[in-house]
Amino acid sequence: MSNPTAAILIIGNEILSGRTQDVNVQFIAQSLAGLGIKLQEVRVVPDIAARIISAVNELRASYDMLFTTGGIGPTHDDITSECVAAAFGVPWELNEETDREMRERMGDRYNAARQRMATMPRGSVPIKNEASIAPGFTIANVHVMAGVPRIMQAMMKALEPSLPRGERIEMRAVHGFGVMEGAIAEGLAAIQARFPHLDLGSYPFKRDGAWGVALVAKGTDLSAIEDAAKQATDLIAAQGVEPIQGEPVSS
Amino acid sequence: MSNPTAAILIIGNEILSGRTQDVNVQFIAQSLAGLGIKLQEVRVVPDIAARIISAVNELRASYDMLFTTGGIGPTHDDITSECVAAAFGVPWELNEETDREMRERMGDRYNAARQRMATMPRGSVPIKNEASIAPGFTIANVHVMAGVPRIMQAMMKALEPSLPRGERIEMRAVHGFGVMEGAIAEGLAAIQARFPHLDLGSYPFKRDGAWGVALVAKGTDLSAIEDAAKQATDLIAAQGVEPIQGEPVSS
Repeated sequence: MSNPTAAILIIGNEILSGRTQDVNVQFIAQSLAGLGIKLQEVRVVPDIAARIISAVNELRASYDMLFTTGGIGPTHDDITSECVAAAFGVPWELNEETDREMRERMGDRYNAARQRMATMPRGSVPIKNEASIAPGFTIANVHVMAGVPRIMQAMMKALEPSLPRGERIEMRAVHGFGVMEGAIAEGLAAIQARFPHLDLGSYPFKRDGAWGVALVAKGTDLSAIEDAAKQATDLIAAQGVEPIQGEPVSS
Repeated sequence: MSNPTAAILIIGNEILSGRTQDVNVQFIAQSLAGLGIKLQEVRVVPDIAARIISAVNELRASYDMLFTTGGIGPTHDDITSECVAAAFGVPWELNEETDREMRERMGDRYNAARQRMATMPRGSVPIKNEASIAPGFTIANVHVMAGVPRIMQAMMKALEPSLPRGERIEMRAVHGFGVMEGAIAEGLAAIQARFPHLDLGSYPFKRDGAWGVALVAKGTDLSAIEDAAKQATDLIAAQGVEPIQGEPVSS
Protein backbone atom coordinates (compact mmCIF):
# COMPACT_ATOMS: atom_id res chain seq x y z
CA MET A 1 0.00 0.00 0.00
CA SER A 2 1.72 3.15 -1.19
CA ASN A 3 -0.93 5.57 0.05
CA PRO A 4 -1.14 6.81 3.65
CA THR A 5 -4.61 6.44 5.19
CA ALA A 6 -6.79 8.95 7.02
CA ALA A 7 -10.08 9.36 8.86
CA ILE A 8 -12.23 12.40 9.64
CA LEU A 9 -14.08 12.89 12.92
CA ILE A 10 -16.79 15.56 12.85
CA ILE A 11 -17.76 16.73 16.32
CA GLY A 12 -21.11 18.28 15.70
CA ASN A 13 -24.54 18.24 17.29
CA GLU A 14 -25.54 20.66 14.52
CA ILE A 15 -24.90 18.02 11.85
CA LEU A 16 -26.74 15.26 13.77
CA SER A 17 -29.77 17.50 14.38
CA GLY A 18 -30.01 18.27 10.67
CA ARG A 19 -29.65 22.00 11.31
CA THR A 20 -26.43 22.28 9.32
CA GLN A 21 -25.38 20.75 6.00
CA ASP A 22 -21.82 19.47 6.39
CA VAL A 23 -19.44 20.71 3.71
CA ASN A 24 -16.16 19.95 5.50
CA VAL A 25 -15.95 16.28 4.52
CA GLN A 26 -15.85 16.97 0.80
CA PHE A 27 -13.25 19.73 1.17
CA ILE A 28 -10.93 17.58 3.31
CA ALA A 29 -11.52 14.53 1.08
CA GLN A 30 -10.49 16.47 -2.01
CA SER A 31 -7.44 17.96 -0.26
CA LEU A 32 -6.32 14.49 0.84
CA ALA A 33 -6.92 12.98 -2.62
CA GLY A 34 -4.63 15.65 -4.06
CA LEU A 35 -1.88 14.54 -1.68
CA GLY A 36 -2.35 10.84 -2.44
CA ILE A 37 -3.79 10.16 1.04
CA LYS A 38 -6.67 7.67 1.16
CA LEU A 39 -9.64 8.78 3.24
CA GLN A 40 -10.96 5.52 4.70
CA GLU A 41 -13.61 6.54 7.21
CA VAL A 42 -15.71 9.46 8.40
CA ARG A 43 -17.58 9.61 11.70
CA VAL A 44 -19.93 12.21 13.11
CA VAL A 45 -20.45 12.13 16.89
CA PRO A 46 -22.27 14.44 19.31
CA ASP A 47 -20.63 16.90 21.72
CA ILE A 48 -20.38 14.25 24.45
CA ALA A 49 -16.96 13.73 26.05
CA ALA A 50 -16.97 9.93 26.27
CA ARG A 51 -18.04 9.61 22.62
CA ILE A 52 -15.36 12.02 21.39
CA ILE A 53 -12.60 10.38 23.42
CA SER A 54 -13.37 6.85 22.25
CA ALA A 55 -13.76 7.90 18.62
CA VAL A 56 -10.41 9.76 18.70
CA ASN A 57 -8.68 6.73 20.15
CA GLU A 58 -10.24 4.24 17.74
CA LEU A 59 -9.57 6.31 14.65
CA ARG A 60 -6.02 7.44 15.45
CA ALA A 61 -5.10 3.79 16.06
CA SER A 62 -6.75 2.53 12.88
CA TYR A 63 -5.39 5.03 10.32
CA ASP A 64 -2.17 6.88 9.64
CA MET A 65 -3.77 10.20 10.51
CA LEU A 66 -6.97 11.66 11.90
CA PHE A 67 -8.51 15.06 11.14
CA THR A 68 -11.14 16.41 13.53
CA THR A 69 -13.44 19.37 12.92
CA GLY A 70 -15.56 21.29 15.40
CA GLY A 71 -15.69 22.04 19.10
CA ILE A 72 -12.58 24.20 19.55
CA GLY A 73 -14.25 27.58 20.09
CA PRO A 74 -14.60 29.53 23.34
CA THR A 75 -18.09 28.44 24.43
CA HIS A 76 -19.21 25.81 26.95
CA ASP A 77 -20.16 23.36 24.18
CA ASP A 78 -16.60 23.40 22.74
CA ILE A 79 -15.01 20.40 24.44
CA THR A 80 -12.89 18.80 21.70
CA SER A 81 -9.54 20.06 22.98
CA GLU A 82 -10.02 18.69 26.54
CA CYS A 83 -11.26 15.42 25.06
CA VAL A 84 -8.20 15.01 22.85
CA ALA A 85 -5.99 15.57 25.92
CA ALA A 86 -7.97 12.89 27.77
CA ALA A 87 -7.70 10.54 24.76
CA PHE A 88 -3.90 10.88 24.84
CA GLY A 89 -3.75 10.82 28.65
CA VAL A 90 -1.79 14.10 28.79
CA PRO A 91 -2.50 17.33 30.72
CA TRP A 92 -4.63 20.03 29.10
CA GLU A 93 -2.60 23.19 29.65
CA LEU A 94 -1.94 26.68 28.38
CA ASN A 95 0.18 26.77 25.22
CA GLU A 96 2.51 29.63 26.13
CA GLU A 97 3.27 30.75 22.60
CA THR A 98 -0.41 30.82 21.59
CA ASP A 99 -1.40 32.55 24.82
CA ARG A 100 1.17 35.30 24.19
CA GLU A 101 0.17 35.78 20.57
CA MET A 102 -3.56 35.85 21.28
CA ARG A 103 -3.05 38.32 24.14
CA GLU A 104 -1.00 40.61 21.87
CA ARG A 105 -3.48 40.49 19.02
CA MET A 106 -6.71 40.65 21.03
CA GLY A 107 -5.73 43.05 23.81
CA ASP A 108 -8.65 43.74 26.16
CA ARG A 109 -10.88 41.29 24.32
CA TYR A 110 -8.64 38.39 25.46
CA ASN A 111 -10.86 37.10 28.27
CA ALA A 112 -11.06 33.78 30.14
CA ALA A 113 -13.33 32.21 27.50
CA ARG A 114 -10.86 33.07 24.74
CA GLN A 115 -7.94 31.81 26.79
CA ARG A 116 -9.54 28.35 26.59
CA MET A 117 -8.66 28.48 22.87
CA ALA A 118 -4.96 28.81 23.83
CA THR A 119 -5.26 25.73 26.06
CA MET A 120 -4.17 22.46 24.40
CA PRO A 121 -3.05 18.93 25.17
CA ARG A 122 0.58 18.96 26.30
CA GLY A 123 2.90 18.42 23.33
CA SER A 124 0.57 20.02 20.75
CA VAL A 125 1.87 22.10 17.85
CA PRO A 126 -0.47 25.01 17.00
CA ILE A 127 -1.95 25.17 13.47
CA LYS A 128 -1.58 28.88 12.76
CA ASN A 129 -3.74 30.05 9.89
CA GLU A 130 -4.92 33.06 7.99
CA ALA A 131 -8.59 32.92 8.99
CA SER A 132 -8.54 33.03 12.78
CA ILE A 133 -6.36 34.31 15.59
CA ALA A 134 -7.01 31.13 17.56
CA PRO A 135 -5.10 28.21 16.03
CA GLY A 136 -5.99 24.53 15.68
CA PHE A 137 -3.37 22.05 16.85
CA THR A 138 -1.62 18.82 15.95
CA ILE A 139 -0.75 16.17 18.51
CA ALA A 140 0.98 13.05 17.17
CA ASN A 141 -1.10 11.94 14.16
CA VAL A 142 -4.22 13.89 15.15
CA HIS A 143 -5.00 17.25 13.53
CA VAL A 144 -7.64 19.25 15.41
CA MET A 145 -9.39 21.90 13.34
CA ALA A 146 -12.31 24.32 13.61
CA GLY A 147 -15.81 23.46 12.39
CA VAL A 148 -16.53 26.76 10.62
CA PRO A 149 -15.73 25.91 6.97
CA ARG A 150 -13.62 28.94 6.11
CA ILE A 151 -11.47 28.55 9.22
CA MET A 152 -11.15 24.78 8.73
CA GLN A 153 -10.08 25.41 5.13
CA ALA A 154 -7.36 27.84 6.23
CA MET A 155 -6.12 25.30 8.79
CA MET A 156 -6.07 22.54 6.18
CA LYS A 157 -4.07 24.79 3.86
CA ALA A 158 -1.62 25.50 6.69
CA LEU A 159 -1.26 21.79 7.42
CA GLU A 160 -0.78 20.56 3.87
CA PRO A 161 2.99 21.12 3.50
CA SER A 162 3.69 18.96 6.56
CA LEU A 163 1.46 16.01 5.64
CA PRO A 164 2.93 12.78 4.24
CA ARG A 165 2.18 12.18 0.60
CA GLY A 166 1.33 9.10 -1.39
CA GLU A 167 1.09 8.18 -5.02
CA ARG A 168 -1.42 10.50 -6.60
CA ILE A 169 -4.89 8.97 -6.89
CA GLU A 170 -6.19 9.62 -10.39
CA MET A 171 -9.77 9.47 -11.60
CA ARG A 172 -11.38 9.37 -15.02
CA ALA A 173 -15.12 9.62 -15.49
CA VAL A 174 -17.49 9.13 -18.38
CA HIS A 175 -21.23 9.51 -18.27
CA GLY A 176 -24.11 8.34 -20.35
CA PHE A 177 -27.44 10.15 -20.35
CA GLY A 178 -30.37 7.77 -20.62
CA VAL A 179 -28.26 4.73 -19.75
CA MET A 180 -29.63 2.57 -16.90
CA GLU A 181 -27.15 0.81 -14.62
CA GLY A 182 -28.98 -2.49 -14.94
CA ALA A 183 -28.36 -2.57 -18.69
CA ILE A 184 -24.57 -2.24 -18.42
CA ALA A 185 -23.88 -4.01 -15.13
CA GLU A 186 -22.57 -7.19 -16.76
CA GLY A 187 -20.24 -5.36 -19.14
CA LEU A 188 -18.99 -3.17 -16.34
CA ALA A 189 -18.20 -6.16 -14.12
CA ALA A 190 -16.14 -7.58 -16.99
CA ILE A 191 -14.11 -4.36 -17.19
CA GLN A 192 -13.55 -4.41 -13.42
CA ALA A 193 -12.34 -8.01 -13.71
CA ARG A 194 -9.77 -6.95 -16.32
CA PHE A 195 -8.47 -4.17 -14.04
CA PRO A 196 -8.49 -5.70 -10.55
CA HIS A 197 -6.11 -3.05 -9.15
CA LEU A 198 -8.48 -0.20 -10.04
CA ASP A 199 -11.73 0.88 -8.37
CA LEU A 200 -14.44 0.97 -11.01
CA GLY A 201 -17.57 2.70 -9.69
CA SER A 202 -21.02 3.19 -11.16
CA TYR A 203 -23.18 6.11 -9.98
CA PRO A 204 -26.69 6.70 -11.27
CA PHE A 205 -27.93 10.29 -11.46
CA LYS A 206 -31.02 12.14 -12.57
CA ARG A 207 -30.83 15.40 -14.45
CA ASP A 208 -33.56 17.34 -16.23
CA GLY A 209 -35.93 14.49 -15.35
CA ALA A 210 -33.88 11.79 -17.10
CA TRP A 211 -31.70 9.09 -15.59
CA GLY A 212 -28.10 8.57 -16.50
CA VAL A 213 -25.04 6.85 -15.13
CA ALA A 214 -21.51 8.04 -14.34
CA LEU A 215 -18.73 5.45 -14.59
CA VAL A 216 -15.59 6.32 -12.64
CA ALA A 217 -12.21 4.57 -12.83
CA LYS A 218 -9.90 5.37 -9.92
CA GLY A 219 -6.43 4.32 -8.82
CA THR A 220 -2.75 5.21 -9.02
CA ASP A 221 -1.95 3.58 -12.41
CA LEU A 222 -2.88 6.31 -14.85
CA SER A 223 -2.37 4.30 -18.01
CA ALA A 224 -4.60 1.49 -16.73
CA ILE A 225 -7.19 4.08 -15.66
CA GLU A 226 -7.25 5.53 -19.15
CA ASP A 227 -7.61 2.06 -20.67
CA ALA A 228 -10.47 1.22 -18.31
CA ALA A 229 -12.16 4.56 -19.02
CA LYS A 230 -11.89 3.86 -22.75
CA GLN A 231 -13.62 0.50 -22.28
CA ALA A 232 -16.32 2.16 -20.13
CA THR A 233 -16.80 4.72 -22.89
CA ASP A 234 -17.27 1.92 -25.45
CA LEU A 235 -19.78 0.25 -23.11
CA ILE A 236 -21.90 3.41 -23.02
CA ALA A 237 -21.57 3.90 -26.79
CA ALA A 238 -22.78 0.30 -27.30
CA GLN A 239 -26.08 1.39 -25.68
CA GLY A 240 -26.56 3.80 -28.59
CA VAL A 241 -25.72 6.80 -26.41
CA GLU A 242 -23.08 9.49 -26.88
CA PRO A 243 -20.58 9.12 -23.98
CA ILE A 244 -19.66 12.39 -22.24
CA GLN A 245 -16.11 12.58 -20.85
CA GLY A 246 -15.08 14.56 -17.81
CA GLU A 247 -16.40 15.38 -14.40
CA PRO A 248 -19.53 13.38 -13.74
CA VAL A 249 -22.61 15.36 -12.83
CA SER A 250 -23.77 14.82 -9.30
CA SER A 251 -27.13 13.34 -8.54
CA MET B 1 -34.56 8.62 27.79
CA SER B 2 -37.81 9.17 25.97
CA ASN B 3 -36.31 9.39 22.49
CA PRO B 4 -35.35 6.35 20.41
CA THR B 5 -31.80 6.52 19.04
CA ALA B 6 -30.49 6.01 15.51
CA ALA B 7 -27.31 5.88 13.44
CA ILE B 8 -26.66 6.34 9.72
CA LEU B 9 -24.14 4.29 7.75
CA ILE B 10 -23.17 5.73 4.37
CA ILE B 11 -21.60 3.15 2.08
CA GLY B 12 -19.83 5.30 -0.42
CA ASN B 13 -16.44 5.43 -2.06
CA GLU B 14 -17.76 8.50 -3.90
CA ILE B 15 -18.10 10.43 -0.62
CA LEU B 16 -14.65 9.38 0.65
CA SER B 17 -12.97 10.32 -2.64
CA GLY B 18 -14.51 13.80 -2.48
CA ARG B 19 -16.25 13.30 -5.83
CA THR B 20 -19.74 13.64 -4.35
CA GLN B 21 -21.16 16.03 -1.76
CA ASP B 22 -23.32 13.99 0.62
CA VAL B 23 -26.82 15.38 1.09
CA ASN B 24 -28.44 12.27 2.57
CA VAL B 25 -27.32 12.82 6.16
CA GLN B 26 -29.12 16.13 6.52
CA PHE B 27 -32.33 14.79 4.96
CA ILE B 28 -32.43 11.72 7.20
CA ALA B 29 -31.41 13.79 10.25
CA GLN B 30 -34.30 16.19 9.69
CA SER B 31 -36.76 13.35 9.08
CA LEU B 32 -35.70 11.65 12.32
CA ALA B 33 -35.83 14.90 14.31
CA GLY B 34 -39.43 15.32 13.15
CA LEU B 35 -40.25 11.90 14.58
CA GLY B 36 -38.49 12.55 17.89
CA ILE B 37 -35.70 10.06 17.07
CA LYS B 38 -32.21 11.11 18.19
CA LEU B 39 -29.53 10.66 15.54
CA GLN B 40 -26.45 9.76 17.57
CA GLU B 41 -23.80 8.77 15.02
CA VAL B 42 -22.98 8.83 11.33
CA ARG B 43 -20.29 6.74 9.65
CA VAL B 44 -19.03 6.71 6.10
CA VAL B 45 -17.15 3.57 5.01
CA PRO B 46 -15.78 2.37 1.65
CA ASP B 47 -17.32 -0.36 -0.51
CA ILE B 48 -15.28 -3.07 1.25
CA ALA B 49 -17.22 -6.06 2.60
CA ALA B 50 -15.40 -6.48 5.92
CA ARG B 51 -15.77 -2.78 6.72
CA ILE B 52 -19.49 -2.73 5.90
CA ILE B 53 -20.21 -5.89 7.90
CA SER B 54 -18.44 -4.72 11.04
CA ALA B 55 -19.98 -1.24 10.87
CA VAL B 56 -23.50 -2.70 10.46
CA ASN B 57 -22.98 -4.97 13.46
CA GLU B 58 -21.50 -2.28 15.70
CA LEU B 59 -24.15 0.30 14.89
CA ARG B 60 -27.22 -1.94 15.01
CA ALA B 61 -26.09 -3.11 18.46
CA SER B 62 -25.40 0.40 19.76
CA TYR B 63 -28.58 2.20 18.69
CA ASP B 64 -32.30 1.48 18.44
CA MET B 65 -32.18 1.62 14.65
CA LEU B 66 -29.73 1.92 11.78
CA PHE B 67 -30.30 3.48 8.37
CA THR B 68 -27.87 2.63 5.59
CA THR B 69 -27.57 4.38 2.22
CA GLY B 70 -25.79 3.25 -0.91
CA GLY B 71 -24.63 0.07 -2.55
CA ILE B 72 -27.94 -1.60 -3.42
CA GLY B 73 -27.91 -1.11 -7.20
CA PRO B 74 -27.29 -3.74 -9.89
CA THR B 75 -23.55 -3.22 -10.51
CA HIS B 76 -20.51 -5.12 -9.22
CA ASP B 77 -19.69 -2.36 -6.71
CA ASP B 78 -23.11 -2.69 -5.04
CA ILE B 79 -22.41 -5.10 -2.19
CA THR B 80 -24.44 -3.71 0.71
CA SER B 81 -27.23 -6.28 0.55
CA GLU B 82 -24.88 -9.32 0.69
CA CYS B 83 -22.96 -7.64 3.50
CA VAL B 84 -26.09 -7.08 5.59
CA ALA B 85 -26.97 -10.77 5.13
CA ALA B 86 -23.46 -11.68 6.31
CA ALA B 87 -23.75 -9.29 9.26
CA PHE B 88 -26.94 -11.05 10.38
CA GLY B 89 -25.61 -14.52 9.53
CA VAL B 90 -28.60 -15.32 7.31
CA PRO B 91 -28.75 -16.52 3.67
CA TRP B 92 -28.87 -13.95 0.87
CA GLU B 93 -31.73 -15.15 -1.30
CA LEU B 94 -34.31 -14.11 -3.85
CA ASN B 95 -37.27 -12.25 -2.33
CA GLU B 96 -40.09 -13.93 -4.24
CA GLU B 97 -42.56 -11.06 -4.07
CA THR B 98 -40.00 -8.49 -5.25
CA ASP B 99 -38.74 -10.82 -7.97
CA ARG B 100 -42.30 -11.26 -9.30
CA GLU B 101 -43.08 -7.54 -9.19
CA MET B 102 -39.83 -6.48 -10.84
CA ARG B 103 -40.28 -9.11 -13.56
CA GLU B 104 -43.82 -7.88 -14.25
CA ARG B 105 -42.85 -4.23 -14.35
CA MET B 106 -39.55 -4.54 -16.23
CA GLY B 107 -40.36 -7.32 -18.70
CA ASP B 108 -37.45 -8.07 -21.02
CA ARG B 109 -35.23 -5.58 -19.21
CA TYR B 110 -35.30 -7.79 -16.08
CA ASN B 111 -31.85 -9.37 -16.46
CA ALA B 112 -29.48 -11.13 -14.06
CA ALA B 113 -27.95 -7.85 -12.85
CA ARG B 114 -31.36 -6.46 -11.99
CA GLN B 115 -32.38 -9.69 -10.28
CA ARG B 116 -29.60 -8.99 -7.75
CA MET B 117 -31.79 -6.07 -6.61
CA ALA B 118 -34.56 -8.57 -5.74
CA THR B 119 -32.09 -10.61 -3.67
CA MET B 120 -32.12 -9.83 0.06
CA PRO B 121 -31.13 -11.21 3.46
CA ARG B 122 -33.66 -13.87 4.51
CA GLY B 123 -36.42 -12.30 6.61
CA SER B 124 -36.24 -8.87 4.96
CA VAL B 125 -39.32 -6.74 4.34
CA PRO B 126 -39.05 -4.74 1.08
CA ILE B 127 -39.27 -0.93 1.28
CA LYS B 128 -41.51 -0.21 -1.71
CA ASN B 129 -41.38 3.38 -2.83
CA GLU B 130 -42.49 5.81 -5.50
CA ALA B 131 -39.09 6.55 -7.00
CA SER B 132 -37.74 3.16 -8.04
CA ILE B 133 -39.04 -0.25 -9.07
CA ALA B 134 -36.32 -1.92 -6.99
CA PRO B 135 -37.12 -1.59 -3.27
CA GLY B 136 -34.88 -1.12 -0.26
CA PHE B 137 -35.43 -3.48 2.65
CA THR B 138 -35.75 -3.66 6.41
CA ILE B 139 -34.28 -6.50 8.46
CA ALA B 140 -34.78 -6.27 12.24
CA ASN B 141 -33.74 -2.72 13.20
CA VAL B 142 -31.71 -2.08 10.02
CA HIS B 143 -33.22 -0.08 7.15
CA VAL B 144 -31.27 -0.45 3.90
CA MET B 145 -31.83 2.35 1.39
CA ALA B 146 -30.46 3.58 -1.94
CA GLY B 147 -27.71 6.18 -2.18
CA VAL B 148 -29.28 8.29 -4.92
CA PRO B 149 -30.91 11.12 -2.94
CA ARG B 150 -34.32 11.15 -4.62
CA ILE B 151 -34.70 7.37 -4.25
CA MET B 152 -33.45 7.43 -0.66
CA GLN B 153 -35.96 10.19 0.10
CA ALA B 154 -38.83 8.14 -1.32
CA MET B 155 -37.72 5.13 0.76
CA MET B 156 -37.51 7.27 3.91
CA LYS B 157 -41.02 8.57 3.23
CA ALA B 158 -42.26 5.00 2.81
CA LEU B 159 -40.59 3.95 6.07
CA GLU B 160 -41.76 6.82 8.25
CA PRO B 161 -45.21 5.49 9.27
CA SER B 162 -43.64 2.31 10.68
CA LEU B 163 -40.85 3.96 12.70
CA PRO B 164 -41.11 4.34 16.48
CA ARG B 165 -41.61 7.90 17.65
CA GLY B 166 -40.28 9.85 20.57
CA GLU B 167 -41.06 13.13 22.22
CA ARG B 168 -40.70 15.83 19.61
CA ILE B 169 -37.30 17.55 19.72
CA GLU B 170 -37.88 21.30 19.55
CA MET B 171 -35.36 23.96 18.63
CA ARG B 172 -35.33 27.74 18.98
CA ALA B 173 -32.58 29.86 17.48
CA VAL B 174 -31.53 33.47 17.75
CA HIS B 175 -28.64 35.08 15.95
CA GLY B 176 -26.58 38.16 16.45
CA PHE B 177 -24.69 39.76 13.58
CA GLY B 178 -21.36 41.19 14.66
CA VAL B 179 -21.35 39.26 17.92
CA MET B 180 -18.22 37.21 18.61
CA GLU B 181 -18.54 33.95 20.53
CA GLY B 182 -15.69 34.87 22.87
CA ALA B 183 -17.59 37.91 24.13
CA ILE B 184 -20.70 36.00 25.20
CA ALA B 185 -19.21 32.64 26.22
CA GLU B 186 -19.46 33.30 29.93
CA GLY B 187 -23.06 34.51 29.79
CA LEU B 188 -24.00 31.56 27.61
CA ALA B 189 -22.44 29.05 30.00
CA ALA B 190 -24.55 30.60 32.78
CA ILE B 191 -27.73 30.06 30.72
CA GLN B 192 -26.73 26.44 30.02
CA ALA B 193 -26.20 25.95 33.77
CA ARG B 194 -29.75 27.18 34.44
CA PHE B 195 -31.20 24.72 31.87
CA PRO B 196 -29.16 21.54 32.36
CA HIS B 197 -31.76 19.37 30.55
CA LEU B 198 -31.46 21.42 27.33
CA ASP B 199 -28.70 21.47 24.72
CA LEU B 200 -27.54 25.03 24.27
CA GLY B 201 -25.29 25.37 21.23
CA SER B 202 -23.27 28.27 19.87
CA TYR B 203 -22.40 28.38 16.16
CA PRO B 204 -20.31 31.13 14.64
CA PHE B 205 -21.01 32.07 11.02
CA LYS B 206 -19.75 34.55 8.48
CA ARG B 207 -22.10 36.35 6.12
CA ASP B 208 -21.43 39.27 3.80
CA GLY B 209 -17.91 39.41 5.22
CA ALA B 210 -19.01 39.86 8.84
CA TRP B 211 -18.98 37.37 11.69
CA GLY B 212 -22.00 36.52 13.75
CA VAL B 213 -23.18 33.84 16.09
CA ALA B 214 -26.25 31.61 16.18
CA LEU B 215 -27.43 30.42 19.58
CA VAL B 216 -29.63 27.32 19.50
CA ALA B 217 -31.65 25.86 22.39
CA LYS B 218 -32.77 22.28 21.81
CA GLY B 219 -34.69 19.68 23.77
CA THR B 220 -38.15 18.26 24.43
CA ASP B 221 -39.34 20.81 27.04
CA LEU B 222 -40.76 23.58 24.88
CA SER B 223 -41.46 26.03 27.67
CA ALA B 224 -37.88 25.72 29.00
CA ILE B 225 -36.57 26.10 25.43
CA GLU B 226 -38.49 29.32 25.01
CA ASP B 227 -37.21 30.64 28.34
CA ALA B 228 -33.62 29.78 27.41
CA ALA B 229 -34.03 31.37 23.97
CA LYS B 230 -35.34 34.52 25.64
CA GLN B 231 -32.24 34.67 27.85
CA ALA B 232 -30.00 34.07 24.82
CA THR B 233 -31.82 36.92 23.07
CA ASP B 234 -31.14 39.23 26.02
CA LEU B 235 -27.48 38.17 25.97
CA ILE B 236 -27.15 39.24 22.34
CA ALA B 237 -29.06 42.48 22.98
CA ALA B 238 -26.65 43.27 25.86
CA GLN B 239 -23.88 43.37 23.24
CA GLY B 240 -25.66 46.32 21.65
CA VAL B 241 -26.86 44.19 18.74
CA GLU B 242 -30.40 43.59 17.47
CA PRO B 243 -31.15 39.86 18.00
CA ILE B 244 -32.71 38.08 15.01
CA GLN B 245 -35.14 35.27 15.84
CA GLY B 246 -35.73 32.22 13.71
CA GLU B 247 -33.76 29.81 11.63
CA PRO B 248 -30.07 30.48 12.06
CA VAL B 249 -28.12 31.17 8.90
CA SER B 250 -25.62 28.49 8.02
CA SER B 251 -21.94 29.22 7.88
